[in-house]
Amino acid sequence: MKPAEQCTVGIVGLGLMGGAIAMALRNRGILPAGRGSGRLLACDTDAEVLAAARTAGVIDEGFTEAEPMLKDCDLVFLCLNPSTLLRFMKDRMAAFKSGSLITDIAGIKGGISAAMEQDLRQDLDFIPGHPMAGSERGGFANAGRCDFRGKNYILTPLKRNKPENLEYLRGLIHRLGFGRVTCTGAEEHDRKIAFTSQLCHVIAAALIDCEADTDITRFGGGSFEDLTRIAVLNVPMWAELFRENRAELLSRIEQFEGSLDALKRLIAEGQGEDLEERLARIRDRRAAMNQEN
Amino acid sequence: MKPAEQCTVGIVGLGLMGGAIAMALRNRGILPAGRGSGRLLACDTDAEVLAAARTAGVIDEGFTEAEPMLKDCDLVFLCLNPSTLLRFMKDRMAAFKSGSLITDIAGIKGGISAAMEQDLRQDLDFIPGHPMAGSERGGFANAGRCDFRGKNYILTPLKRNKPENLEYLRGLIHRLGFGRVTCTGAEEHDRKIAFTSQLCHVIAAALIDCEADTDITRFGGGSFEDLTRIAVLNVPMWAELFRENRAELLSRIEQFEGSLDALKRLIAEGQGEDLEERLARIRDRRAAMNQEN
Repeated sequence: MKPAEQCTVGIVGLGLMGGAIAMALRNRGILPAGRGSGRLLACDTDAEVLAAARTAGVIDEGFTEAEPMLKDCDLVFLCLNPSTLLRFMKDRMAAFKSGSLITDIAGIKGGISAAMEQDLRQDLDFIPGHPMAGSERGGFANAGRCDFRGKNYILTPLKRNKPENLEYLRGLIHRLGFGRVTCTGAEEHDRKIAFTSQLCHVIAAALIDCEADTDITRFGGGSFEDLTRIAVLNVPMWAELFRENRAELLSRIEQFEGSLDALKRLIAEGQGEDLEERLARIRDRRAAMNQEN
Repeated sequence: MKPAEQCTVGIVGLGLMGGAIAMALRNRGILPAGRGSGRLLACDTDAEVLAAARTAGVIDEGFTEAEPMLKDCDLVFLCLNPSTLLRFMKDRMAAFKSGSLITDIAGIKGGISAAMEQDLRQDLDFIPGHPMAGSERGGFANAGRCDFRGKNYILTPLKRNKPENLEYLRGLIHRLGFGRVTCTGAEEHDRKIAFTSQLCHVIAAALIDCEADTDITRFGGGSFEDLTRIAVLNVPMWAELFRENRAELLSRIEQFEGSLDALKRLIAEGQGEDLEERLARIRDRRAAMNQEN
């Protein structure tokens, strides 16, 4: 791979994350506007978004069809929902430039990893990825709200990935502002993300679901606001992620229900030191997580 | 009541909230250090905290016994846990200055309201209150982290409260920086707070309880961090609040379990529009809460 500064980089899907990646490439001096030999392209079905992004100087050129863009790209960020992504790769496989490096941002990795391990053209490299940054408000209009600084990024490399491409992508991710980059298997990713991301969204949703009085916010002191901020869901995306990772998510919900039930029983009993002991263990575990962060 | 600037104000319990109230009285020009006729006093069992607060200019004088302080105070903030508060009022009832206005900050109001409605000296006024601001890190050392600006404050007035004292306290609370001040009954407070505060803490605790791997934070993208920030619990305080408000909290936990179970079933079924519809309703309700905030 050429240095990123000399690459033609293509963003497929200029939504929240595609937009945020484009902005980071621009603003962090990797592909600054009007300088160097590198170019920043994007394709999207929404021509207005492309025009706005071009006017704002976020991209050099926009495409409503992917093929004319992909044929020039050395590096491609696929910023699509999981199901759209699979279809896109199936339909556009022939359009990629030989030798190009492709990565994605989908929040679930099992399906895409299996498909790419098997079906990817031999002259392409595809490294599945998941930037752990976002915003409860979606779309290109909110891309500027995405702050990558210090955030986690997960890569779930395929057996066939070239080690030098993996190092290249890892370096680029750090230059985009991300903190820890963790390499793991697609299965482990899906298992852990079911806990840290999907379960949290289900909990936030359930919390809003069980209280109809919107004026309850008068009684909010921060906890409720923190726990439910993410309940302003991108519904089609989350419904898809919940369904795609169904088995892992259901198992995590049940684990959580077990812990909640145990706490409920300790509160109901209302005596002895057991509640304090359990809460103290929880407090210490959460504090240990802070240190590792 | 005299203007607050001319009052002797006493803080009982110079912890997180007592310290934060003292700092707000100082820094917002109500009782600035070394000016005016008003004085800011505090009593606490910890002489080191009192000495530090005096050295830092946060208070004018510290007391390890309450009586010598209370006899001079026109206005008293009781910043104690609920059970300590009830005992304090029982043991120190004779020590308050005649005509003084007393308020508290306890997170549950049923017990203290009933006790004060019945047992308070006729020449005193006690307005129960609950500032909806705090920090998961307790103690005077963290008082500076408490930001009152725009936060909610709940008052649960007694039948016997003087209307002019209620207006006086409400005005002072706004001057401390708080936004909305809501007056409601003790029962309604306890019912709503069981949802916005205690249930949220139980959920955060359960989420940490069900995952032993502290390295899971590598897979965190903000949601997990937001949902579990409050799990670094002040254990004795929260155990007490959970127990004191047991009936309301258990009923809220069960409501939440019902909503979680409904979402779980929709995810398990994995087809139809029902999951999307329910998530869309949740998204809209959460957005409506934002607008009212």
